[in-house]
Amino acid sequence: MSSNPRVELLTLGDELLLGIRANGHLAHIGGELARHGLILRRNCCFRDDVDEIREFFQDSWERSDIVITTGGLGPTVDDNTREIVAEVLGAELVFRQDIEDAIRARFKRLGKEMSKNNLKQCYLPAGAELLPNPYGTAPGIWMEKDGKYLAMLPGPSSELYPMLKEHVIPRLCSAGLCRHDEAYLQIRTMGVGESGLEERLRPIFDQYAGLGVAYCAHQGMVDVRLSRGKGEYSRADIQNIAKACQEELGPDFVCFGDTPLPKVIFDHLRAEERTLAVAESCTGGLLANAFTDIPGASKVFTGGIVCYNNDAKMELLGVPEDILAQHGAVSAETAVAMATGVAERLSTDYGLSVTGFAGPSGGTPENPVGTIYIGYHAPCGTWCIRMKYPGERVTVKTRAVNRALDVMRRKLNKYKVEDAMVTLIRAD
Amino acid sequence: MSSNPRVELLTLGDELLLGIRANGHLAHIGGELARHGLILRRNCCFRDDVDEIREFFQDSWERSDIVITTGGLGPTVDDNTREIVAEVLGAELVFRQDIEDAIRARFKRLGKEMSKNNLKQCYLPAGAELLPNPYGTAPGIWMEKDGKYLAMLPGPSSELYPMLKEHVIPRLCSAGLCRHDEAYLQIRTMGVGESGLEERLRPIFDQYAGLGVAYCAHQGMVDVRLSRGKGEYSRADIQNIAKACQEELGPDFVCFGDTPLPKVIFDHLRAEERTLAVAESCTGGLLANAFTDIPGASKVFTGGIVCYNNDAKMELLGVPEDILAQHGAVSAETAVAMATGVAERLSTDYGLSVTGFAGPSGGTPENPVGTIYIGYHAPCGTWCIRMKYPGERVTVKTRAVNRALDVMRRKLNKYKVEDAMVTLIRAD
Repeated sequence: MSSNPRVELLTLGDELLLGIRANGHLAHIGGELARHGLILRRNCCFRDDVDEIREFFQDSWERSDIVITTGGLGPTVDDNTREIVAEVLGAELVFRQDIEDAIRARFKRLGKEMSKNNLKQCYLPAGAELLPNPYGTAPGIWMEKDGKYLAMLPGPSSELYPMLKEHVIPRLCSAGLCRHDEAYLQIRTMGVGESGLEERLRPIFDQYAGLGVAYCAHQGMVDVRLSRGKGEYSRADIQNIAKACQEELGPDFVCFGDTPLPKVIFDHLRAEERTLAVAESCTGGLLANAFTDIPGASKVFTGGIVCYNNDAKMELLGVPEDILAQHGAVSAETAVAMATGVAERLSTDYGLSVTGFAGPSGGTPENPVGTIYIGYHAPCGTWCIRMKYPGERVTVKTRAVNRALDVMRRKLNKYKVEDAMVTLIRAD
Repeated sequence: MSSNPRVELLTLGDELLLGIRANGHLAHIGGELARHGLILRRNCCFRDDVDEIREFFQDSWERSDIVITTGGLGPTVDDNTREIVAEVLGAELVFRQDIEDAIRARFKRLGKEMSKNNLKQCYLPAGAELLPNPYGTAPGIWMEKDGKYLAMLPGPSSELYPMLKEHVIPRLCSAGLCRHDEAYLQIRTMGVGESGLEERLRPIFDQYAGLGVAYCAHQGMVDVRLSRGKGEYSRADIQNIAKACQEELGPDFVCFGDTPLPKVIFDHLRAEERTLAVAESCTGGLLANAFTDIPGASKVFTGGIVCYNNDAKMELLGVPEDILAQHGAVSAETAVAMATGVAERLSTDYGLSVTGFAGPSGGTPENPVGTIYIGYHAPCGTWCIRMKYPGERVTVKTRAVNRALDVMRRKLNKYKVEDAMVTLIRAD
């Protein structure tokens, strides 16, 4: 086994190739392995077909140190992966009474009878180990052969994810193939592009030869992952380097790890026992939804108002008719009135608002499609930011929401509640 | 070339394997090809590494009739795909002045100078055809060699998707490898599971030997795709079969094609010049967002109110304090009061509401976590449906929204506005 083992993932499923379902297994398994220092070298999706499975598994097994398969372990005649893999490995399939007992017990709990089909799932290749599946009938399979490792996992995510975490990763760690602790330290940033970030952090990284540095840009954020690389830096070294990056980045530093922006804001407000409400037009509920994905959101988030016309803005948010008439619904003045209005209506400390033209139609010469105003109302002041985004409706919505969240995060870090002042539209 | 050509997709990108980004190219390209009758046989994701690219491209090219690659056409030193593919094909790279001119013109339009790096992008393998890229610098490449076809596409979706549609699909059609018209007719259903649907439609399909039938379940919906299969049925035959399915399915039939549920409702209300508003607690903006993803949503959708506490439900939706005190915020009575309240506040014809416990905490003995009430207010009556969903917070939210949309769709189809009656909670 090399010190940098080759790991490949085989995902079975016709729906993936027909474009019906996105390949979520790749993102999840790749991410979990990377977190433990094991870099997935390849992922192959192919049809649930005897010849395809045989060919691809054989190739993959020859080339790799570790092979992970997902899907094809079900009880129907189409589910052939177990049989073909056993054949390629030259291992007989052996009946396991303990698997039958577990499946029967599961059906009994659900008040059902086990179907005869399920007997198929009670066979394991000789020498393989059973990976228990508390969330479904298909048991996982773990096998070591010729110094290589095989993990066969069921297709449904609700069964696969816990099995990966509780059974596969620990076995890979025990075999010395990946690390128990986090393999990298991640710095989450927002507001600087990938190349700009690289330039700002290079002077720090240049002092540490061999340090592992990887940049990952997504949805307006850029994450930087620091790992020991060839330099064999200690955990403490890496923490110190990360701290130096945090200082250099100032307000562009979001957090260590991968906390989503709404959760960063939620944690801040929760610690200060403050509350928030949001008002939206063009983002149409996406901003509220970002907060309500957080378990326990109601401790901070009181509610949101989506206003798609002027009457609703006046009636529900108390935006003055004069402002709408003079400046229009897409304007700095309306954005601020929405943020203040929603905070008043819902009696919250903070209000965050988005108004704009998400397209494809709408827009004016001064405010063409893609123009977004973000309004922010806090105990210490009121702000407005104007943005212009290219792209399609759904893209503009997502970028506007991420930017609104980032505006709020920055202001929260910059101003304390005690900085209370006469409410005004600040320029910074 | 076989009548059932083998097509493979190679996607390059370290982020995919590190779990940072989902492989959207697979879903998009697989779906587009299937729509034109070409079934993707395999997708392989691997690292942007010279040896990996060489090995996988060589294998894939040997095995396939058509190979599509995505990514690796950029201007940096890491972007090697063009060079390696040319080497494997034994084709020299030839400088193309027209590509340089196009890239220079693009930079000029953006008020920038072309970087020297970009010269790399001006080379094509001898015998290849240029696929123009109006949305970026990387030109696509199309090549026919030894009776096989190669399409090399840039990585960013905004460049890839239009190039696939406007240049690759038409060339595949001209080469007789796929169909100009839609290869299948899709029936979208909701409310019946995949196996139940199969049972109901089997008596129809049994009359047409060789008819191609594929079921695809996703997000509570099941799509049925009918294609000519081995029977060589005509377009008209398939349309008649689809009509028979529609009749059999009754209210479980949603539409032909792939119109999303919110759009089905939008089109219905738009045709009748009716308006809608929504009120949500546990789904937290996701229901409003489903409607506001539709371009021109404001013609039907007036707004939404997300209420995370009782005060907000009373203040913004006019839910009577008595109802909240007697029945609780998660109850049929509150759901109906929310639907009626939001329709009144926003002066719309229809109101749709969701209240429930999305988890992980909350819930009562009568209404445990996962319990959802859907309220629906229409000119002809008011309804409430109670549901219980297993799963995590985000899953419960999604399923509740889909179910709320389906409840509304069914009622819209069943009752005309003229059926107006005394408002009551109907049992069906």
